[in-house]
Amino acid sequence: MKKISYLGPNGSNSHSALLHYAKQENIDNLKEIPAPTIEDAIIYLEEQKVDLTIVPIENSVEGSVNVTLDRLALNSALKISGELLLPIRYAFVSSKDTKNKIVKAIASHPQAIAQCREYIKSNFSDAKIIYTSSTSQAAKMCANSDDGIYAICSPSVLELYNLNIIAKDIQDFKNNCTRFITLTLNNENYDYNEQHIKLSILFSTHNKSGSLFDVLKIFKDLNINLTKIESRPAKNNFGEYIFFIDMEFLKTKDLLSKIDTQLSIKTNFYRYLGIYKSYTNHSPKTII
Amino acid sequence: MKKISYLGPNGSNSHSALLHYAKQENIDNLKEIPAPTIEDAIIYLEEQKVDLTIVPIENSVEGSVNVTLDRLALNSALKISGELLLPIRYAFVSSKDTKNKIVKAIASHPQAIAQCREYIKSNFSDAKIIYTSSTSQAAKMCANSDDGIYAICSPSVLELYNLNIIAKDIQDFKNNCTRFITLTLNNENYDYNEQHIKLSILFSTHNKSGSLFDVLKIFKDLNINLTKIESRPAKNNFGEYIFFIDMEFLKTKDLLSKIDTQLSIKTNFYRYLGIYKSYTNHSPKTII
Repeated sequence: MKKISYLGPNGSNSHSALLHYAKQENIDNLKEIPAPTIEDAIIYLEEQKVDLTIVPIENSVEGSVNVTLDRLALNSALKISGELLLPIRYAFVSSKDTKNKIVKAIASHPQAIAQCREYIKSNFSDAKIIYTSSTSQAAKMCANSDDGIYAICSPSVLELYNLNIIAKDIQDFKNNCTRFITLTLNNENYDYNEQHIKLSILFSTHNKSGSLFDVLKIFKDLNINLTKIESRPAKNNFGEYIFFIDMEFLKTKDLLSKIDTQLSIKTNFYRYLGIYKSYTNHSPKTII
Repeated sequence: MKKISYLGPNGSNSHSALLHYAKQENIDNLKEIPAPTIEDAIIYLEEQKVDLTIVPIENSVEGSVNVTLDRLALNSALKISGELLLPIRYAFVSSKDTKNKIVKAIASHPQAIAQCREYIKSNFSDAKIIYTSSTSQAAKMCANSDDGIYAICSPSVLELYNLNIIAKDIQDFKNNCTRFITLTLNNENYDYNEQHIKLSILFSTHNKSGSLFDVLKIFKDLNINLTKIESRPAKNNFGEYIFFIDMEFLKTKDLLSKIDTQLSIKTNFYRYLGIYKSYTNHSPKTII
């Protein structure tokens, strides 16, 4: 049996990502373990209550999911084993009873509210916003209301909560996507194969002029395409950062040892977050 | 009269930053215009309802304030005219009536909740979290409650709402700081002087290998120290980014025209966000 944690409850985008992953990996004995927050989903893995967790790391509109990056920085045992790109669609819904009542309040997860900002502003600028811990919880709250509480949620929960759809695809950016990663513990030996196309690292730089430039030069010189760079505060002091870099992984002999040698000179500390495969066809081909 | 907008109500960290700024600039005819959200504070400026806005752009624990960065990217008329670093302190408070009652719920702004995560987890892991649009609003909610709603807020509002302090300095990181920026409209001609020590730019890169490296090389070659790099999604397609770079500004002859020439070759588009002064002594001296 394979136990996998995710941000629940059922019907969340994380749940959809989990189902996609399980199908790709042909897991037929899956035990789904919903968690109340993204952090808890990762902690379940750290406490070995599950074999794997699937969590969002980046959205095409809202940017990085900070709690996921910060947890990766905090715990060196966490390893990325895969990634998956999921289109994000939001619907505006009511319970069957409230559908003709005035929109007093709109419930949803803060990220969903942010991703439908224009829709809310154009149509219901006076409605009160109720933040919930997931879009599914908002759907549930809406289903139990007969007093003007509407919700923004994934269309996948409509049946589950017997909801009425008022508008679909209400997200401000139609190509809205979230990138999920699968995490496992201590996958130290990289038995990578031709399916493993991405490498992610984190590092901090020396406190000197051009230190980030020096690190980027390593990858430039090795002809490695970078797909993302992200900074997060080191937290102890203002102005100190940790960097996350994602890159296309090349199956070149000794590549890792070449990168190792350079990173150990050019960074303050560094760590591989994983060499991993993609569970979806990546259409984006932007490199930096 | 100088009208300045900020994330209100009074007692918010933004309000403290505003008071600090007004003192430094010797503004004696100040009209404070509180806004319900950071976005609204900036929109008030865009609609010329105010002369200046002061908004947070970065916190030492939670990282960048995305709504501020995204608004800067969206509207080329916004210019940074100054920055200010403010220590962030949080207190755990109750109304005078509730101080001995069980902690059923804790109200605060999502950023404050995130910044006191460990304190909440260690002491009140079962309490319900109520998200509010500012810490002052949480303080107000708490003041009006006689039923176990506590709040996390700035110690500066204790008197205003007649609150009882239970614990102070509860933020997880004791050196917690927020960097604020002052924004004005269309400050096109840079009449900078020796007080103007920072330059911020935004740009997008060509979609080719080493494109970010090429931009960093411009500043390396000009001996300019970078203090921050941040990426935000371009939003239309997954994997496309806009970069924000802050740097120490040197009063060298023709420097801006040299940067201009290079950026126009090495970027897809670029824009100066401002050459500006600091209203606080910056202790952090980290460069990248």
